[in-house]
Amino acid sequence: MTHPTTLTALEAIDALAAGHLSAVELTRAYLERIGDVGLASNAFLHLDTNGALDAAHASDLRRANGTSYHPLDGIPLAVSDNIEVAGMPLTAGMATRRRRIAQSDAHCIAKLRRAGVVILGKLNLDEAGFGSRGDNPHFGACSNPYGSDHSSGGAASGAAVAVALRLCALAVAVDGLGSLRVPAAFCGVAAFKPSHSRVSQRGLISVSQRLDQVGPVARSCNDLSVVFQQISGVDALDAQSRTVPLAHIERDPRRLTIGVIAELAAQGIAIDVIESFRQSVERLRGLLPIQDPIAFNDYDFGHKRCAAQLLCAAEMNLVHADDLATQPENFSGHLREQLAAAARAGAVDLIAAEQRLDLARLKARRIFSVVDVLLTPTAPVAAFAWGTETPEHIADLSSFADFAGLPALSVPMGNLNGLPLGLQLVGPRGSDLQLLALGERIEAVLGRAATPPAQDAGGTRRTAYPGRGIIG
Amino acid sequence: MTHPTTLTALEAIDALAAGHLSAVELTRAYLERIGDVGLASNAFLHLDTNGALDAAHASDLRRANGTSYHPLDGIPLAVSDNIEVAGMPLTAGMATRRRRIAQSDAHCIAKLRRAGVVILGKLNLDEAGFGSRGDNPHFGACSNPYGSDHSSGGAASGAAVAVALRLCALAVAVDGLGSLRVPAAFCGVAAFKPSHSRVSQRGLISVSQRLDQVGPVARSCNDLSVVFQQISGVDALDAQSRTVPLAHIERDPRRLTIGVIAELAAQGIAIDVIESFRQSVERLRGLLPIQDPIAFNDYDFGHKRCAAQLLCAAEMNLVHADDLATQPENFSGHLREQLAAAARAGAVDLIAAEQRLDLARLKARRIFSVVDVLLTPTAPVAAFAWGTETPEHIADLSSFADFAGLPALSVPMGNLNGLPLGLQLVGPRGSDLQLLALGERIEAVLGRAATPPAQDAGGTRRTAYPGRGIIG
Repeated sequence: MTHPTTLTALEAIDALAAGHLSAVELTRAYLERIGDVGLASNAFLHLDTNGALDAAHASDLRRANGTSYHPLDGIPLAVSDNIEVAGMPLTAGMATRRRRIAQSDAHCIAKLRRAGVVILGKLNLDEAGFGSRGDNPHFGACSNPYGSDHSSGGAASGAAVAVALRLCALAVAVDGLGSLRVPAAFCGVAAFKPSHSRVSQRGLISVSQRLDQVGPVARSCNDLSVVFQQISGVDALDAQSRTVPLAHIERDPRRLTIGVIAELAAQGIAIDVIESFRQSVERLRGLLPIQDPIAFNDYDFGHKRCAAQLLCAAEMNLVHADDLATQPENFSGHLREQLAAAARAGAVDLIAAEQRLDLARLKARRIFSVVDVLLTPTAPVAAFAWGTETPEHIADLSSFADFAGLPALSVPMGNLNGLPLGLQLVGPRGSDLQLLALGERIEAVLGRAATPPAQDAGGTRRTAYPGRGIIG
Repeated sequence: MTHPTTLTALEAIDALAAGHLSAVELTRAYLERIGDVGLASNAFLHLDTNGALDAAHASDLRRANGTSYHPLDGIPLAVSDNIEVAGMPLTAGMATRRRRIAQSDAHCIAKLRRAGVVILGKLNLDEAGFGSRGDNPHFGACSNPYGSDHSSGGAASGAAVAVALRLCALAVAVDGLGSLRVPAAFCGVAAFKPSHSRVSQRGLISVSQRLDQVGPVARSCNDLSVVFQQISGVDALDAQSRTVPLAHIERDPRRLTIGVIAELAAQGIAIDVIESFRQSVERLRGLLPIQDPIAFNDYDFGHKRCAAQLLCAAEMNLVHADDLATQPENFSGHLREQLAAAARAGAVDLIAAEQRLDLARLKARRIFSVVDVLLTPTAPVAAFAWGTETPEHIADLSSFADFAGLPALSVPMGNLNGLPLGLQLVGPRGSDLQLLALGERIEAVLGRAATPPAQDAGGTRRTAYPGRGIIG
C-alpha cells in the first residue's frame, strides 16, 4: 500500500476506519520519517516518541472496542512550541525558556486530546513566535524544503516544514500577522487562520492577544476544516473568546463574487508573484467567473505595519517581563532592541496604533459589502534566500486579515523556480467554514500540497548560533 | 389636562396619537419650563428654540397627513454636548471648543432625527465628558435638583438634571464609567447603558472607545426602551460597532435568578446605601423570589479604577492633541494634569491596563453562568455635597459593566435624606431589551422618577470659574 505518511489526515481517517492501517502503524511511519529526513530539517524542537506510541496504542484499543472519540482519533499531530502541551517543553523558541515545561494543555490542545489525536512533539519557530524568517537564533534554522538555501518563512517555520516534509499529518501553530500562512505558502502547504476569537488563546505564549489565533496546517483544506471544527468554540476563561456570529456568503461558487486585489505592483508585490497570481486566477475562472478588482490604495500598509509592530512588542514586554529583568542576555540582540523600543513608546502611541489598526475593519466592511471573498497572493514574494534581509512588507498581504479579525486561508499556488507560492482567501468574519469549503474546490483546480524533492543532506542551514534541534 | 411636561415620553406619544396634544404644544411647554426653572439649573449649554419649534411644526404636519415617521415623532429630546448635532455647538464641556459647531449629526442623532424627534438643544457635562461631579469649570455647575448644595453627579450632569426637572422628555448622553447612570441615580431618573458596540460611537467626542456607549435618560424604563431601539444597530463606518449576539435570559421574573452583590460594606459602600438597597431588594422579593449573593472579593476595584483612568486619559490625549498643543491654558489644571500623567505612561502600561480590564469579562461570565441579572446600588454613595471631594470609588459599581461591555440600567430606589438613590441592573451582553423589560416591572414596585421639590432661586452653584449656561 501507499506509504502512510503520504495520506492526508482525511485519507488516514478513512484507512483507520476501514482497518487498513492502525494508529500505531501510522505513528511509527511518521516517527521513522522524522528519523530519516526530519532531524536534519530542524522542524522539531522536542519529540515524544514514547508518549506518541502510547497514545496511538490507546487509540487502537478504543477503535477495537468501538469507543473511538472522534474521526481524528489516532491521527499524529505536532504542535508549535508556543502552545502549551502538558509535560512537554514550552520554549516559544526562546533561550530564556529552555527549561520550562508546560504544566497543562492549552485549551485547543485539550480539545484535540479529547478527540484522541496523537501528539508527536513540539515544533520550531522564530524567537518568541515573532519573526518571518524561520531562522531561530537559539535552536537553529528551518530551511525551506524546496531549497535549502532559502527561508521557510516564519514565525511558525517548523509547522510548515514538518507538514511539507510529511513528518506529521497535521500541525497547529499561532498565526498573528500571517506567521502561519506565510511559512505555509513558502513551503507549499495549506494553512488556516480562524476568525479572531473563535479559537481560545488560553495557553499560548502570546505575541498579541488582539492578533493571535491558533490555526491548523495540513496538506489539504479538508484536513484544515476537521481540525478547525475541533479547536474552535467559546472558552469562558479566555477574555478574547466570544461567540462570533456566522457570516453568510454565497454558496454556489459560480455565483460567488470574488474580489481580486488590484494594483499589486504599486503595493510592492514582486512582478513574478503577480504573474503567477494572475495565471492562477485565470485558471479559476471556470470555477469563479465573477471577479471584481479591489483597490487598496486607500489602505496604508506601511503605517499599519508600524502600528502592529508596536502592539506586538509592547505586549511581549509584558509577557516576558520576568525574563527581561533577570536574564536579558538570553534574548537575541534583535529581539531585545525591538522590545526596548516598545518599552520606550508611550501609552498614547499605543492607543493611536490600535485605532490605526481598527481602520482595517472598516476596509474589510467596504470589501465584503461588494464581494464574498478576497483573493490575494499570501505573501508579496516567494521564499527569500538565506543571507538576504527579510522583505519589510512580507506580512502586508496576510496581516490585513489579522488587523480586521477575519478568517484567512492559504493554499498552494504554483511555484517560482521551484519555490512554492500561496494563494490567500480572506472572507468576512464568521465565514470560516465556507472559506475552507471554497479552498477545497480551488485546491482541486490548482493542485494540493506535493512532496518536495529530496534535499541534500546539508539541508539545515548552519547558523551563527549554537542550537540543537531535538531537546528533552 | 395634566401639564404636558409631566408626561413620560410614552404617555406623550399616546397623547399625540390621540390628538390630545400637538408636538408644538408639547415643545412649547418644555421651552417654557426651561425658561421658568431651566436656566437656573445650568443643564442646557445651548438651546435651539426656533429649530425645535420648526421641527415640532413639521412633525404636526406629518401627523396630520398620516405620514409620521415613528412613535417618537414630535417628542422633545436634548443631547449631551459631546455628541454631534449638525449646526449646534459641540463643546464637550471644554473651553478649547467654545466656538466649534458640529458639521453633521452623530450616527445615533441621525437615527433619532429620522424618527422625527424634536431636538431642544445641548446639555452640560463635565469637562471633556470626563468626571463625576457635574461641576464644569468653564460652563458652570449643575446642582442636584434634590439639593442645590449637592452634586448632580457626572459626567452627563445636564442630561440627568434636565430629565429630572422636566426640561425635556428624553435625553441622550455618553456613559463611559457610569457617567450617565451615576448622575441619573443622583437625580432620581432612569438611564440605560447599552451593551458595548450596539450603538454607534461615530460622532462622539470620545473619552474611551472601549468604554463609551451612548444611552438614553428618561423618567421611565419604557421610554428608555423606545430610544434604545431607535439608536442601536450596526454602523458599518464605526470600527467598534458590531452585531452583538442576543443573550437569552429567563423571561418569567418569578423564575429569574437574581444576583445580589455581597459584602457591600467591604467594598466601601456607604452603610445607609446598603440599608436602602437591602430594603429595596426586600420589596422586590414578591417579584424576584430567587436571589443569590455574588461575591466581588476576587475583583480588584482599585486596580481596575487605575487601569480605566489610564485608558481614558491616554485616549483623550489623542482626541484633544491639537488643542493641547495650541491652547493648553484653556484646559482646567485638573484635566491637564491627568492628561500629562497619561502622556508620560508607557505603551506597556497601557497593554497591562487593557488586560486588567479584560478580567472583568471573565468575572461577568462567572456571574452570568449562575444568575440571570445582577442587582447593585448604582453608586456607593448618594449625591455628595459641593465642597467635598469626589469619592474615589464613585464609579466602582457602575464601571464593572463598562469593563465587561455589559448592558446596565439604573432606576430610582428611594432616597437618603431626600437625595435619590439608584438601583442598578446588569445583564449579560446582548440582554439589553430583557433588562429594560425587567426594569419596567421593578419600577412598578419601587416607583418611577418623581418631580423634585422646587429649589430656592440660588439653586445654581456659583463656581470659581466664569461660565455661562446658554451659549449660541
